[in-house]
Amino acid sequence: MQAEEKNFKLTIEYDGTHYHGWQVQPNGPSIQQEIESALETMTRQKIRLAGSGRTDAGVHALGQTANFVCATAIAPADFHKGLNSILPPDIVIREMVEVPFQFHARFDAASKRYRYHILNQPVPSAIERRYAWWIRSPLDLAAMDRAARHLVGKHDFKAFEGAGSPRAHTIRNVMGIDFHNPVPGRITLDIRADGFLRYMVRNIMGTLVDVGRHKISPDGVSEILASRDRSRAAATAPSRGLFLMEVRYD
Amino acid sequence: MQAEEKNFKLTIEYDGTHYHGWQVQPNGPSIQQEIESALETMTRQKIRLAGSGRTDAGVHALGQTANFVCATAIAPADFHKGLNSILPPDIVIREMVEVPFQFHARFDAASKRYRYHILNQPVPSAIERRYAWWIRSPLDLAAMDRAARHLVGKHDFKAFEGAGSPRAHTIRNVMGIDFHNPVPGRITLDIRADGFLRYMVRNIMGTLVDVGRHKISPDGVSEILASRDRSRAAATAPSRGLFLMEVRYD
Repeated sequence: MQAEEKNFKLTIEYDGTHYHGWQVQPNGPSIQQEIESALETMTRQKIRLAGSGRTDAGVHALGQTANFVCATAIAPADFHKGLNSILPPDIVIREMVEVPFQFHARFDAASKRYRYHILNQPVPSAIERRYAWWIRSPLDLAAMDRAARHLVGKHDFKAFEGAGSPRAHTIRNVMGIDFHNPVPGRITLDIRADGFLRYMVRNIMGTLVDVGRHKISPDGVSEILASRDRSRAAATAPSRGLFLMEVRYD
Repeated sequence: MQAEEKNFKLTIEYDGTHYHGWQVQPNGPSIQQEIESALETMTRQKIRLAGSGRTDAGVHALGQTANFVCATAIAPADFHKGLNSILPPDIVIREMVEVPFQFHARFDAASKRYRYHILNQPVPSAIERRYAWWIRSPLDLAAMDRAARHLVGKHDFKAFEGAGSPRAHTIRNVMGIDFHNPVPGRITLDIRADGFLRYMVRNIMGTLVDVGRHKISPDGVSEILASRDRSRAAATAPSRGLFLMEVRYD
């Protein structure tokens, strides 16, 4: 029997702690590589996985997406279970569905949502040490919230782009930034945009934390944004607090 | 200056994944040993830590307690910060307070509360893999809840005691067992008792999961309890889902 070519979309959860990021790297393990290798084991074909975009070393995901085309006669449910049984336990395929051929995980992404976790209490956490940025001194959440409002909308985010990988176009549309403080000591930031520059969420987070520490005024963030100057923004927040939550398609 | 002897109570959080349990072991690292070693570094004295009780290999804690007596001139806040800076990141002293000399973490414990986490969904979790028991097939939570009611009260829990460490007295008072289902796919069990036998929570959990799988009827749990026969209860639930949440003192 000749198997037909199909296009599959994956929704992926991973613990980024032990990886050099999403993209295949010469110098260490990557999420993409692990999944491509599991796909090869399952199908005995070399398969190229197209992710919605990179995540950096140490960044986690609950809802990264990717797609791949392959000719297979394996039933989708068995394919899905098989992949999860081959993959290391820190990478899980949450969902696997067949999609139309024209679907592409990166080009068709309409928006992404990231979440950043801060643990703002006098002591660190043993259980959450890999999944949150611990900040001992109390942050002024109201000031951070005011500052974040300056970033909502279509802006040139060059001041928040990581060095070393400049993009030609640095204008992005931030559709929403929301802080939550579900229980004392826990702060989460949700940020949705049509796209993100490299390190953009972590550079924004680092800057907003400096606002929370009263090192930068809330309106200062507006000036940093307008400056388009990376050296004006604060240090990059650690990768361990960052989760890619969702990639939306129209 | 001659430092005065003081009695300190610690409240401890730990990720038990990489430890052979609370108690000092000849064959591998233990939480108690790590803390005693940090205390020795801080005080240059050999200090014996008295825990509220053991936790088994792989079991976590958010609220383990312990006490120790030592002559020190270090201010408590500095002592606390110093300990956390010496300890490995998977052990954190959440609180350190001076207590009266007669306080003993084990003998004075009035009750303890454990929490067990189950992830009941078709796929495992990369992020929570160390902190929950993943069960693929849907559990009948209503049946588990009915079964759990048979265990509340003062009973002989010999049927739920682990082999190899029999206690003379196997009667314990279970003050409450509560299931929570905060979001679909997540089940937590809270159990409070005046004391626990070895493996008791995990053996109860394993048995209740068999009720949820319809392998044991809810009333069957009452028969297992009455039998005082370990071979009647189900397999021990994995340690990674178990957290010692709180130790209460009168």
